[in-house]
Amino acid sequence: MSVIFVDGILDGLERRDPTALARAISLVENQRDGFERVLAHAYARVGRGGARRIGITGPPGAGKSTLAERLIQQLRGEGRRVGVIAVDPTSPFTGGALLGDRIRMESTSVDSGVFIRSMATRGSRGGLATTTEEVADLLEAFGFERILIETVGVGQTELDIARTAETTVLVLVPESGDGIQTLKAGVMEIADIYVINKSDRPGGDRLRQEVEVMLGLRRGNAFRHVAQHRRSDSWTVGPSDVTAPSRSDRPTVRPSDGWEPPVLSTVATKGEGIADLAAALDRHFTYLQASGQRDARRRQRLRDRLRAVVERTLRQWVWDATRADELVTERLDDVAEGRTNPYDVAAEILHQLKGGALP
Amino acid sequence: MSVIFVDGILDGLERRDPTALARAISLVENQRDGFERVLAHAYARVGRGGARRIGITGPPGAGKSTLAERLIQQLRGEGRRVGVIAVDPTSPFTGGALLGDRIRMESTSVDSGVFIRSMATRGSRGGLATTTEEVADLLEAFGFERILIETVGVGQTELDIARTAETTVLVLVPESGDGIQTLKAGVMEIADIYVINKSDRPGGDRLRQEVEVMLGLRRGNAFRHVAQHRRSDSWTVGPSDVTAPSRSDRPTVRPSDGWEPPVLSTVATKGEGIADLAAALDRHFTYLQASGQRDARRRQRLRDRLRAVVERTLRQWVWDATRADELVTERLDDVAEGRTNPYDVAAEILHQLKGGALP
Repeated sequence: MSVIFVDGILDGLERRDPTALARAISLVENQRDGFERVLAHAYARVGRGGARRIGITGPPGAGKSTLAERLIQQLRGEGRRVGVIAVDPTSPFTGGALLGDRIRMESTSVDSGVFIRSMATRGSRGGLATTTEEVADLLEAFGFERILIETVGVGQTELDIARTAETTVLVLVPESGDGIQTLKAGVMEIADIYVINKSDRPGGDRLRQEVEVMLGLRRGNAFRHVAQHRRSDSWTVGPSDVTAPSRSDRPTVRPSDGWEPPVLSTVATKGEGIADLAAALDRHFTYLQASGQRDARRRQRLRDRLRAVVERTLRQWVWDATRADELVTERLDDVAEGRTNPYDVAAEILHQLKGGALP
Repeated sequence: MSVIFVDGILDGLERRDPTALARAISLVENQRDGFERVLAHAYARVGRGGARRIGITGPPGAGKSTLAERLIQQLRGEGRRVGVIAVDPTSPFTGGALLGDRIRMESTSVDSGVFIRSMATRGSRGGLATTTEEVADLLEAFGFERILIETVGVGQTELDIARTAETTVLVLVPESGDGIQTLKAGVMEIADIYVINKSDRPGGDRLRQEVEVMLGLRRGNAFRHVAQHRRSDSWTVGPSDVTAPSRSDRPTVRPSDGWEPPVLSTVATKGEGIADLAAALDRHFTYLQASGQRDARRRQRLRDRLRAVVERTLRQWVWDATRADELVTERLDDVAEGRTNPYDVAAEILHQLKGGALP
């Protein structure tokens, strides 16, 4: 039955049926039976054309949704089909900026060239970046040429998600904090394009200047060397007791030279600066291709993703197809009453898995 | 050598040497050789006494750090030794509220009854809640009687972390949004105590009333039934395309009856309401014990943790002790060029692991 359901989805995808796309995304999001078959089908259809993935991230209230909405209109005006993934609409403190619903209602509801999907974070922790990338595959395979990935939240998970895009746009606003102070390690390094939105408000110019100084863009400025130094070893910057990320957690490589991230000013509500943003996105894409960075980044991302998929497959096998969960239940009393501990139980389960005793 | 290093840490912990504690935490945070031995040592020493774990969460700017600082003073005044874990100091948009450094400098620097540790989130994604719980074990085993876990961020990961505590305090402020609108699914359910901080500012009373209505605390109020209904099935509330969390992602059980979460008003900067908060924490702890909820919650938490530790152990084994990583590298070209896909490679690796061909 499940096979027939998946067959139906694959047929629908071939026919470019949006209902099949929505079903495929749900299947993948919930990792139901057959989701990997659908993903393999999509994977065979991505990376060939000129489709581009654009991440938009920033603090709550930065106007990302409005900016995305304007960018969609701009890209539609250029004749592009646009897929949008809005991640984390259920995040408790984002103030209800559920991009998907809003745009769907407002401006693009009858436009088949736009497909918007909100993704909940609940229940998919740990693997959300991978799932987002896989949903982007589905959109690209379906024929969308620009895929916007909006992360409303601002934690590590959201940065990981933004990092799966080819071009990452960081949206800041004058109100979002004490200017440059809010731009801590992990954010400055990730963005390819900076946008100061609501730039007509007090502090807009100052924030822009601070970001530019920090990026070392102002030639002859004493900060330049410092900023470049910070960026070149950025992935090891942090509290002194933090080591470099382990192999599996290593972020996608971001080159520290060759591309000077522009700092743009926009007033998204008035549509100001949107054409500049679209032009900067084009420039960055051209740079990525000409420099070979596009392939390099894709390869690094693919390696991370391959490892994540292996881990997920392994998890599914252990909990669904072996006696490991039963053993956890059996040992729970002993652990709760201190007769053993989680580490000895885990070692025992691993030992049995290795010996083939559990499956 | 590593064995000797770990022996030294264990000796130091027995002697109540704070340097050994700091080293033990670093070992665990970075999952270096021998960390599980240190954790097993700590695990044998927790859960016996009356130590309590208190989570403090809320949006940026809610004054959590100041509140925590005042609470530490209050608890110290009651003669309690207090351990503090401040999670996510490197989160990019928190505005620099690095609790640890600030308190250490300001008020408690010479007080051996307080130990503050900041934990970075980078490099530990996916397992941060487990690591936080393990660091709390280290603090408890060391003799700290109250362990505050402050999460500065507000994403799913931070909620997961707060959930590892026995009592969770949600801190809100009049400015943090449009009142009740900001309290979406996932937040209302998690807190045992609500604090309206900066309650002397405009909107403080209104926010408090809104929270109380939502909690159904006002007897005779028409919202009561609705609120209770929402809470009782809260873990399945969400967008219609989201299924219930899978077994491993199931959150810790929170009973929807027996405890009516109080909504407190504080002005942390002036120390107002802190004694009330401490009293509410005591009441909640008494409730947990008398109702049997403390054991029930601990057991549920332990089950989740046991599964997380099994998964971590498995990951370590696969990447460090088998040829899986080599195989990923070997297949990368084929995946990049579309001759195969991540799902077939993962299936191949799983097949080899099961057959014992890889180790």
